[in-house]
Amino acid sequence: MTFVQIVVLAGGVGGARFLAGLRAAVPGARISAVVNTGDDVTMHGLRICPDLDTVMYTLGGGIDPDRGWGRLGETWTVKEELAAYGAEPTWFGLGDRDLATHLVRTRMLDAGYPLSQVTAALADRWQPGVELLPMSDQRVETHVVVTDPDSGRQQAIHFQEWWVRHRAAPPASAFVQVGVDAARPAAGVTEAFAAADAVLLAPSNPVVSVGTILGVPGLRAALLATPGRVVGVSPVVAGSVVRGMADRCLPVVGVEVSAEGVGRHYGARSAGGLLDAWLVHTGDRADVPGVDVRAVPLLMTDPDATAAMARAALDAAGV
Amino acid sequence: MTFVQIVVLAGGVGGARFLAGLRAAVPGARISAVVNTGDDVTMHGLRICPDLDTVMYTLGGGIDPDRGWGRLGETWTVKEELAAYGAEPTWFGLGDRDLATHLVRTRMLDAGYPLSQVTAALADRWQPGVELLPMSDQRVETHVVVTDPDSGRQQAIHFQEWWVRHRAAPPASAFVQVGVDAARPAAGVTEAFAAADAVLLAPSNPVVSVGTILGVPGLRAALLATPGRVVGVSPVVAGSVVRGMADRCLPVVGVEVSAEGVGRHYGARSAGGLLDAWLVHTGDRADVPGVDVRAVPLLMTDPDATAAMARAALDAAGV
Repeated sequence: MTFVQIVVLAGGVGGARFLAGLRAAVPGARISAVVNTGDDVTMHGLRICPDLDTVMYTLGGGIDPDRGWGRLGETWTVKEELAAYGAEPTWFGLGDRDLATHLVRTRMLDAGYPLSQVTAALADRWQPGVELLPMSDQRVETHVVVTDPDSGRQQAIHFQEWWVRHRAAPPASAFVQVGVDAARPAAGVTEAFAAADAVLLAPSNPVVSVGTILGVPGLRAALLATPGRVVGVSPVVAGSVVRGMADRCLPVVGVEVSAEGVGRHYGARSAGGLLDAWLVHTGDRADVPGVDVRAVPLLMTDPDATAAMARAALDAAGV
Repeated sequence: MTFVQIVVLAGGVGGARFLAGLRAAVPGARISAVVNTGDDVTMHGLRICPDLDTVMYTLGGGIDPDRGWGRLGETWTVKEELAAYGAEPTWFGLGDRDLATHLVRTRMLDAGYPLSQVTAALADRWQPGVELLPMSDQRVETHVVVTDPDSGRQQAIHFQEWWVRHRAAPPASAFVQVGVDAARPAAGVTEAFAAADAVLLAPSNPVVSVGTILGVPGLRAALLATPGRVVGVSPVVAGSVVRGMADRCLPVVGVEVSAEGVGRHYGARSAGGLLDAWLVHTGDRADVPGVDVRAVPLLMTDPDATAAMARAALDAAGV
């Protein structure tokens, strides 16, 4: 498998674990992760990239495995102090260890480095064994259109506010990618697709993770120009999402919460969609015209199971 | 003593303790502290005001009394993480609790608030019982001219680098106030002098604390226009400085390290200088022509001793 080049589209926790499994499955491969940055947010003046950090910490051994995000052994002193000053917001989980990452990132961004270079500099400490690429060097921030319960008016709130503060409870009527018009794929993304033997869609949120990545102008076309096969992994198992709150997102874009629903949403590459193959969980069924649908175990319960799942994705890609 | 208005020029640790004693000595007075900001520095993108924070934490009960600076119960997680990233500088004591102060400050400054308003907002949490005024809302940063031991060339390094990193060891040939030409007294400073019944020079560093404050264009003239008497307190006791490294600074500006030397450096108000009265420590002698020199205990060994010393300064001011 040496010199095989694989690109993975990934969000946060699910994408990070899938990447860890893939890294274990093909030790000699060159893996590039194109990571969602639509969840990024500036808080207390710090630029925070939740998905990039989750992937970096997970692959670098710094993640809190129980929470799935943030640093192992984390402390919350700064957060408590900010609250004592009445500094908003207080609902975001800003850990002390994590904060150092944001400080270094913010400082480098302020100095003019693009996010892709900043990410590479941060990863130099963590040695994730995978090339970490933000989907874009431009800022694209997902906002959620919700109805204000008091005024009855529609308003757009930052994805993090909807997701973390409100636990995705307020019904969303749309997701808006602020800044997407001016975005383009980050340095290295198009080149990674062009060299790929396989492109995998991690079992991440199809709307606000994979969907956001694909919304970057030019990225989808670059992906489809890849010489490799494109294989997706369903985040929906037995009719429900394994983690996260994709079940709160899929209906907003009119997609059924099922392996078939998401598969059809991505669509067949031969018919203008993305997929050559689609992995669903053992026992699930999915009829996606024009796509090689395969049922394999998709629960990332431990590193071996995750590596086997990544191996199945590569098999479907023919590498 | 009700309604007495007192202005104090203060640096860090010594100024903070003197202010605590003064607050105890005249509970009904309105006290304004004009604080040195020449030590201010931006590190890791955070705006840090060491003297303002030392005064605020000391008067607000948040100081580490053993160190004399920074927060009680401080932890150093972020600092250690920054070092793990290789982020410079690593020699500055950036505590987790303290860092929250810098984050709030930096965010407000970036939003356009002047430092005086930022300082008031931070002090709202700490309730120091004293009006905290930065000497200026403009940035004035003390740099130290030293000779590079390798090249033999003179170079200017930031005061914090000289003071904290190098412990004031490299011989200084000059102190330079970067930005001072464009500075003016912060909002409230001139008004405080105009209303003062007494202006006290705390036993702070006469060169890089009190001297820096007096170097702000217009500040010295505003001070001298005060209707109150001006009383200085010697930071030199029995020929050596009680704390800090003023003995490394005074010779640079040609001043002898003695109570008399500093008194003469400040000079008599009647002769174009500052002082109406000058307090030296019991047993010290100082001949400062035109100035009412008084010998009283000047060691701030405990709150009572410090309050008595402040009381003696007010006596010398005739209030």
